[in-house]
Amino acid sequence: MSTSEGRPRLRLHEHPTFLLAQLGVHTTERFGSLLAPLNIQPRHVAVLSTLLDRSGISQQQLCESLHIHRNVMVGMVDELERRGLVERRRHPVQRRAHALHVLPAGAELLRKAEEILDAYEAELFESDGSDVRSAVLETLQRIATRAGVRDASQPECGGCGAGEQVPH
Amino acid sequence: MSTSEGRPRLRLHEHPTFLLAQLGVHTTERFGSLLAPLNIQPRHVAVLSTLLDRSGISQQQLCESLHIHRNVMVGMVDELERRGLVERRRHPVQRRAHALHVLPAGAELLRKAEEILDAYEAELFESDGSDVRSAVLETLQRIATRAGVRDASQPECGGCGAGEQVPH
Repeated sequence: MSTSEGRPRLRLHEHPTFLLAQLGVHTTERFGSLLAPLNIQPRHVAVLSTLLDRSGISQQQLCESLHIHRNVMVGMVDELERRGLVERRRHPVQRRAHALHVLPAGAELLRKAEEILDAYEAELFESDGSDVRSAVLETLQRIATRAGVRDASQPECGGCGAGEQVPH
Repeated sequence: MSTSEGRPRLRLHEHPTFLLAQLGVHTTERFGSLLAPLNIQPRHVAVLSTLLDRSGISQQQLCESLHIHRNVMVGMVDELERRGLVERRRHPVQRRAHALHVLPAGAELLRKAEEILDAYEAELFESDGSDVRSAVLETLQRIATRAGVRDASQPECGGCGAGEQVPH
């Protein structure tokens, strides 16, 4: 492909790398704005979801699972604890670590967030049939597993919505 | 779906919103590290590509097209100009704006970046056939257009690789 001046041209929208980056930023922003009434961000959803699924893991394990830096994570867990959504308990094995648990209010908030997420994703795929949606989901999962961002042995994915946005 | 305690469970990897966010961060990081020998980042590739395609646009138009904040963009254009990759020229119409143009060294750098991108994407889709790759690309393009992050009338997409990463 060439420009009118005969030079080679890289078309960004023909490259999944750029489309994924662009859509990743967009979906995180959009889902984030839809979550505003709950006063949480997509990364809080990722944390609550992971903790509900793997109750009692340490903060270190949570960081590794979600590819979120520990400095960012400590602030998030502090905030979730202050709001009565999660709880740090004495770790049964690691003396210097805490075991993290979701409290009932956190589970309830997560349920509401999931309703918002389901509605948003229905909008995202709009006219696409469930077969198209399944095929895309499968391919994304395969790429994520192969790329090592999602450990195939883990029930939850990593790095979810953890990207910082450029201010607009 | 329920946890062992019978509570509802949101599985992140079953949601395209989280997979897209996760893969967007990952592909930007990975492509960024592959670009290191060229001393540019994915966002520079997006800028050079857009300017080569729409030669003479203003910085403002470039910001709008790529969804990159003007404070970030001014530094990027300064840097690219200092390296002799782009040039600000007098704008033919807007008295207070500059028209941006890619210089031959910028076009050559972009050509090298595209080779790296093509090789990376071949790795990304590995065992997937070209039909799977095309189908995923088409769906991602459709979602991007529908979501308004890619203007269907524009040859280039927006927000490409513009997300800031959480430090690891």
